[in-house]
Amino acid sequence: MLDAQKIRQDFPILDQLVHDENLVYLDNAATTQKPRSVLETIERYYREDNANVHRGVHTLAERATAQYEASREKLRHFLNAKSTKEILFTRGTTTGLNWVAHFAEQTLQPDDEVLISVMEHHSNIIPWQQACQKTGAKLVYAYLKDGQLNLDDLKSKLTTKTKFVSLAHISNILGCITPVKEIVELAHEVGAYMVVDGAQSAPHMAIDVQELNCDFFTLSGHKMLGPTGIGVLYGKEDLLNLMNPFEFGGEMIDFVYEQEATWKELPWKFEAGTPNIAGAIAMGAAIDYLETVGMDAIQAHEDELVAYVLPKLQAIPGLTIYGPQNPAEHAGVIAFNLDGVHPHDLATALDYLGVAVRAGHHCAQPLITHLGIHSAARASFYLYNTKEDCDRLVEALLETKEYFNGAF
Amino acid sequence: MLDAQKIRQDFPILDQLVHDENLVYLDNAATTQKPRSVLETIERYYREDNANVHRGVHTLAERATAQYEASREKLRHFLNAKSTKEILFTRGTTTGLNWVAHFAEQTLQPDDEVLISVMEHHSNIIPWQQACQKTGAKLVYAYLKDGQLNLDDLKSKLTTKTKFVSLAHISNILGCITPVKEIVELAHEVGAYMVVDGAQSAPHMAIDVQELNCDFFTLSGHKMLGPTGIGVLYGKEDLLNLMNPFEFGGEMIDFVYEQEATWKELPWKFEAGTPNIAGAIAMGAAIDYLETVGMDAIQAHEDELVAYVLPKLQAIPGLTIYGPQNPAEHAGVIAFNLDGVHPHDLATALDYLGVAVRAGHHCAQPLITHLGIHSAARASFYLYNTKEDCDRLVEALLETKEYFNGAF
Repeated sequence: MLDAQKIRQDFPILDQLVHDENLVYLDNAATTQKPRSVLETIERYYREDNANVHRGVHTLAERATAQYEASREKLRHFLNAKSTKEILFTRGTTTGLNWVAHFAEQTLQPDDEVLISVMEHHSNIIPWQQACQKTGAKLVYAYLKDGQLNLDDLKSKLTTKTKFVSLAHISNILGCITPVKEIVELAHEVGAYMVVDGAQSAPHMAIDVQELNCDFFTLSGHKMLGPTGIGVLYGKEDLLNLMNPFEFGGEMIDFVYEQEATWKELPWKFEAGTPNIAGAIAMGAAIDYLETVGMDAIQAHEDELVAYVLPKLQAIPGLTIYGPQNPAEHAGVIAFNLDGVHPHDLATALDYLGVAVRAGHHCAQPLITHLGIHSAARASFYLYNTKEDCDRLVEALLETKEYFNGAF
Repeated sequence: MLDAQKIRQDFPILDQLVHDENLVYLDNAATTQKPRSVLETIERYYREDNANVHRGVHTLAERATAQYEASREKLRHFLNAKSTKEILFTRGTTTGLNWVAHFAEQTLQPDDEVLISVMEHHSNIIPWQQACQKTGAKLVYAYLKDGQLNLDDLKSKLTTKTKFVSLAHISNILGCITPVKEIVELAHEVGAYMVVDGAQSAPHMAIDVQELNCDFFTLSGHKMLGPTGIGVLYGKEDLLNLMNPFEFGGEMIDFVYEQEATWKELPWKFEAGTPNIAGAIAMGAAIDYLETVGMDAIQAHEDELVAYVLPKLQAIPGLTIYGPQNPAEHAGVIAFNLDGVHPHDLATALDYLGVAVRAGHHCAQPLITHLGIHSAARASFYLYNTKEDCDRLVEALLETKEYFNGAF
């Protein structure tokens, strides 16, 4: 098991007062805090080695390039990809999903289908809407059962017309975990590609893309202790070879003539212009940190927090919790509403008690609509959260409930 | 006048030995070093305020959002745009130019023309090749005269068929300065939009987009003391309202239905997904630094360096300098070749003497081809460079020349 109290010492931001209360940061599904080692990596890079990568023959450029490409190898190892050719640096999950949907535009025909679910994040919906609108393909939704993806509904909609299946590995509202490996097999049986939105899973559990056998997997550095503005798209090498670049410019070319250009080999074909060099290197430091703690230990810790807090939340009268009600089926992201209190007011009230949660549609309006609500509050956990944080959340909810009950 | 020796104290990276020599960093056209204040801003943001921006109602999210949007206002002021609605955060100049070329795809018809020049960076060539290939429009090039843009050739190619003119404000090889304001007037007379690639100008001179009256202007944070992975696209508000987003996802939407979505108002319509929050805020700190020194002082300092070093370089037998030969017409980026020495060998030799320059095609192969060469070495200056740096460059070139003359 990990020692969350010891880990917290690496995250100086957590040691602060908000409205005179010790901060309890429970907005990890939106973005995570950074350990000292990540900040030191950024600082050291800019203080000692900063230069533009590739082509440079001077010492700083060689150092920067070596660190940038070493980070790519760290990500390859983290995801267990076969080759660094399969690891593309992006701005984040959104960019990765846009690139894959752009690839879909190369191949989709009218009457083809793209299968997603109603619980997807907007970044895994709108790019597919665009691809379908441009190609005449149809965007098909799988719906829910018992607060999670309805596998039977998904299976019934998976046909030989389906060319892409794209699903969140963990829903950022429901907290349910998609059985990716099983769905990959079904998708491949009908000849569809499987895309995994790993924004909420890669930070919290061990990922092995070869074992999952998914065709694409995308993640965001900032949701896993890394800096903002950097992420990774994994794709199988043969597919990335078929895939056109999304952005065009320097660094990604082999030769540029006045009227045409040829592309570099993988992975650089996709990385136009100066990349987020410091971001990529610092994401590598985040990976180092996560691997030192251990992804299994992180998952076990979060499972323990959920097993501890979910029953306490369920015991609060008037509190509706979305997603699976069984803690064993619920990842560390818990969305809820309190009867008679607008989620924004709820989040504001919790903030006054030092507890940071998010409120809103969480970039998943089709799901929010499907649930028959307008918004929800959400608490999301990470390796530095403790049972004390869980208690603070529960206490703050009870205090807020009492306040609003008295007020109305 | 600025005090470069005093400024250097803010850039700890410059105070290091490379191959036992004091580093002379002359690769500023590729990327610039960061002052302490920029590094401290990144550190402070992540240590005190880090959260995802917009929609968050908790304290950290409010602080992060306020700083992110304050940075947008700093950029608006820096460029003298009318409104922050016209300031879009991008990954860098490459992304900005891709967005504009994508907008061109919305409007270009067969037989329409896009006018660029042979001195453009690949990021201002390939997106236009793609737009023209997709729409049937024609990509037309203006060529050179006396080492700089041939204005007569440009004018002769500017017709009512021309819909977009896109030019580097300062060439990253020739160091020549494009008379943007004059060309904007000519472009507007024929009804064309004017796009300015400001990657090499915005770091080095005061920019006033209203005075230039250009339709789009793009820059990269990392080339102006800011971090990697962040930049700005300026566009006139009415054009940005016509322009479709390039990436789709969270944060940029008004409402998402299952089969369609509507967009937020400017500027957020273009900013899908979690942005490079820390990068944007730190770019704001870079702008603060530049404005404290003063853009006119920076330009005057670089002019002084060029007036000092260019004649010394011209006096080296066998050294060919590209671009204008008159220092008054040459910005602080100087590309050259030494007879009988491959540019990569030259850059390696200079590196052994502590002088960091770049060698290669500098992402401008059509220009390199047009000049009848395969590559060139390039020294590029910034506010922290000194006349001593210029002397070190000249001495290192002379020493290298002697070495190679002896060796062959």
